[in-house]
Amino acid sequence: MPELRRCPITRRWAIIATERAVRPNGLRTTRDTVPPAISPFAAGNEHMTPPEIHAVRAPGSAPNGPGWRVRVVPNKHPALRVEGDLDKRPVGLYDHMNGIGAHEVIIESPDPDFRLQRLPREHLVDALETYRVRMQDLQHDSRFKFALLFRNHGAASGATVAHGHAQLIALPVVPAETQRMLDGAQQYYRSHERNIFDDIIRQEVDDGRRLVHDAGPFVLIAPYASRVPFELWIVPRFHATRYETANRDQLEALAGVLALALDRLDRGLGDPAYNLVIQSAPYGMDDVPWYRWHIQIMPNLTRVAGFELGSGFFINPTAPEEAAEFLRSLPA
Amino acid sequence: MPELRRCPITRRWAIIATERAVRPNGLRTTRDTVPPAISPFAAGNEHMTPPEIHAVRAPGSAPNGPGWRVRVVPNKHPALRVEGDLDKRPVGLYDHMNGIGAHEVIIESPDPDFRLQRLPREHLVDALETYRVRMQDLQHDSRFKFALLFRNHGAASGATVAHGHAQLIALPVVPAETQRMLDGAQQYYRSHERNIFDDIIRQEVDDGRRLVHDAGPFVLIAPYASRVPFELWIVPRFHATRYETANRDQLEALAGVLALALDRLDRGLGDPAYNLVIQSAPYGMDDVPWYRWHIQIMPNLTRVAGFELGSGFFINPTAPEEAAEFLRSLPA
Repeated sequence: MPELRRCPITRRWAIIATERAVRPNGLRTTRDTVPPAISPFAAGNEHMTPPEIHAVRAPGSAPNGPGWRVRVVPNKHPALRVEGDLDKRPVGLYDHMNGIGAHEVIIESPDPDFRLQRLPREHLVDALETYRVRMQDLQHDSRFKFALLFRNHGAASGATVAHGHAQLIALPVVPAETQRMLDGAQQYYRSHERNIFDDIIRQEVDDGRRLVHDAGPFVLIAPYASRVPFELWIVPRFHATRYETANRDQLEALAGVLALALDRLDRGLGDPAYNLVIQSAPYGMDDVPWYRWHIQIMPNLTRVAGFELGSGFFINPTAPEEAAEFLRSLPA
Repeated sequence: MPELRRCPITRRWAIIATERAVRPNGLRTTRDTVPPAISPFAAGNEHMTPPEIHAVRAPGSAPNGPGWRVRVVPNKHPALRVEGDLDKRPVGLYDHMNGIGAHEVIIESPDPDFRLQRLPREHLVDALETYRVRMQDLQHDSRFKFALLFRNHGAASGATVAHGHAQLIALPVVPAETQRMLDGAQQYYRSHERNIFDDIIRQEVDDGRRLVHDAGPFVLIAPYASRVPFELWIVPRFHATRYETANRDQLEALAGVLALALDRLDRGLGDPAYNLVIQSAPYGMDDVPWYRWHIQIMPNLTRVAGFELGSGFFINPTAPEEAAEFLRSLPA
């Protein structure tokens, strides 16, 4: 059983997931994805994954066979387990709970070489809708407090299966980093009676230097305090605390701006590895005026090194103004 | 001039250091260290670095020539600049200050192939003493609030020069991660009237499963909530808030346990890349009962991926009990 353990000093949780073991005799010291001869996520190979949880399928096609365009399966090597009790208890001065949670894989296309930004628009909307459906579904389990939808693209980003996919992890705790974001947004609202995301959008649209694309319901910006070169945020103009409340119209607009962002990174920087995260509010926080869901994209062009790990302080060699200007300058 | 910029939501600072630019036309997409034909840090090549700030030298040898065994120089591509004013000001809703700080390189041996753990003991003590001297010296600049001494070993850890070295960054702010550690330790002390590091040592020595080595004034442990496989902490048994107060006896004992830790990682895991950080208290916090300096070593055996970046929540596939047992089992 995986465990959640909390550092008593920083209060940060770690998942000790020994079933994904990196053991002394089997250490992964090479980090590059070795493309397997066969993609376990491709059409026709549905038997290579656990049975599907959800799929967007051609009418009449049977589950766990071809005919799908978006497919959701449990992670074969989950960091967390769905079955069991939390068993919260102290271990001396430490905090322990069982590693209860969901760990799903969302395969956005049966084509092993697909790129999200090149999918037909309606197909991409189906993928974004699938993210929404799965995030919403997991909230019914009262053990879960938070869900994180993320996408590691490319070996340098930590992807271990070359066939593109997103992952969804539902957790029995709210991560410290998320809590800080929530606390910061709430404090700003208390001081100003305004949503901080509205103020960020207003300033970035007025200023223009860090604005990559202004797409009606969404803005695409290189954030002022970008942690890494070419960090991008997609922020809704409309107010919504949680991604799961997005309707089809909103997801269509989101698909447009997401495809634009990923396409510019792809063409401008030569298909860089990236980490993408949907930052949504915790389960139960259904509508608060001070927080708004948004998407963060962090290309993986430099290494996170000792200084960053030791201080949480990022050194970014590329100004977001320069990144935004470069991305804007690419032909449409 | 580099800039410090603060995310208005998370309150986390980033250094925008455009003089270390990663520009679209010059992106580092390969991340492995290419060993240069000549080490700029080797004996005889002193002219390849900026003039030295400090050195441990043979009597009679001249600065910036051979004859040294530990040498400190300014970083040739510093993330921060020593000259100038902080110029703290708002940029709309954001916080800006100039990237004022020190960025030094501490070369612990003139031998391009040296390993810290294989240096003669007295030589290693000189290196640890040099860390101490430089951390102490920078506190005299009242613009600096905090210094981080770190060491990136191996290309996977972010090292960009193959010749081993430590780095020292002095900052005009206390990083958010450090502040959280300080806050957590202080809160524990308020609740219990005991230093949390004393309680951790007591529990780990009693329990034994995560104890790698008990070396008198220092314990070497795999921390309970280890973020990465084989994370190790060296914690002093004696009370000291800041590393800079360590005396020669203490540094001799530290050299012993540090060499043991790095030697076991080297032999047990095949010279893995690692990040090492000395976690000391901020400048001005000279002696508080609730905090204690310590060393954190994070081997780089798995990748930090989207989930970690998005949540601050680490997934660690190796239990610290297993890591400690393996490291203990190696022949001395």
